[in-house]
Amino acid sequence: MRQVIIVAGGIGKRMGAEMPKQFLEVDQKPIIVHTIERFRSFDSGMGVIVVLPEQWVSYFQDLAVKFNINCQVAIGGAERFQSVQNGLELATADVVAVHDAVRPLVSNETLRNVFDAAESTGAAIPVIALSESLRRVSDNGSVALNRSEHRLVQTPQVFRLDILKAAYQQPYDPVFTDDASVVEASGKQISLVSGNVENIKITTPADLQLFHSFLQ
Amino acid sequence: MRQVIIVAGGIGKRMGAEMPKQFLEVDQKPIIVHTIERFRSFDSGMGVIVVLPEQWVSYFQDLAVKFNINCQVAIGGAERFQSVQNGLELATADVVAVHDAVRPLVSNETLRNVFDAAESTGAAIPVIALSESLRRVSDNGSVALNRSEHRLVQTPQVFRLDILKAAYQQPYDPVFTDDASVVEASGKQISLVSGNVENIKITTPADLQLFHSFLQ
Repeated sequence: MRQVIIVAGGIGKRMGAEMPKQFLEVDQKPIIVHTIERFRSFDSGMGVIVVLPEQWVSYFQDLAVKFNINCQVAIGGAERFQSVQNGLELATADVVAVHDAVRPLVSNETLRNVFDAAESTGAAIPVIALSESLRRVSDNGSVALNRSEHRLVQTPQVFRLDILKAAYQQPYDPVFTDDASVVEASGKQISLVSGNVENIKITTPADLQLFHSFLQ
Repeated sequence: MRQVIIVAGGIGKRMGAEMPKQFLEVDQKPIIVHTIERFRSFDSGMGVIVVLPEQWVSYFQDLAVKFNINCQVAIGGAERFQSVQNGLELATADVVAVHDAVRPLVSNETLRNVFDAAESTGAAIPVIALSESLRRVSDNGSVALNRSEHRLVQTPQVFRLDILKAAYQQPYDPVFTDDASVVEASGKQISLVSGNVENIKITTPADLQLFHSFLQ
């Protein structure tokens, strides 16, 4: 059995006065529901753990009823790190994915690639090549990097449960920008597999529009 | 007076059997025409130099008549580097931009930012923050980088003509992925200004769809 922890925003800095992005409706369906359905269409037995800010739990539970979604709910923390920790307390499968609620466009092929690799190596993430040039910035200016030596990282990031749990027992460090960086800091090498370019994180109105046009 | 060199693909590896992307029509207008109109709507006096593969020159000239575009044409080389060199031979303005033909969504604000900065510092490019985590890959595996220390680079990249011409007299080096990396190798510091997130390089069907939905 596989499980996915869907991280749907922490409390505080990710939450303005408005509705969090994962609840915005596209084609009469909230983004987070699209995202969960992606995983269930890949594997109908996928266990789903949704991590939510406390004040949005009842709102989400109404959605779960309306869209007939069977899942567990954990409460989010101040940082994504704590949110994943809280979700992990409910995880029991041998292999567990962590996924952004606002990535509803992950493909079946990406899911297959990343679960297969994690099942054999213990830790796998989807990545894509950069289509832009890349620079490193510092107080002393900036410098061009070699784009071909870099990759953009997507989710789901998938791990054997024991590896992921051990990694999340480390103290929080601000350099932890994703689960792979947490697991890597615990000494485990990460396998890279091909993601799909459409698997964007919906963060701007442009992204929302792109998602909408994909559904047409 | 300002000029822009619109780089519309080299010969060979960028050209398959099909029509190059810059000629695809979106809302009854080829992408390259949208792109040129962006620059002319920012500055109606903008000089435009289009660099094209030789076998597409007459096709483009018909488009220029149809869409009433007044511009100069240079012939592309095997690499982007040579294409820019060929475009530069026609450049006469004090400040010259180099822009990808398939970036029709550059905003007036980005154009103002980057031309202003180049006019005062000699070399400026638009950049945006990464919304994804970033890794460096090598034969020994991969490692997480600090996303906040990195930027994605867009075009137009704008330079004082003397600086750009001097830089392009260097021998070609495969690490030259954009004009800023060429100018930087000649010893000149590059100013970074804010780009706009919509200013994507149209490289996939998803990008094409996004551009279409932006025009609605």
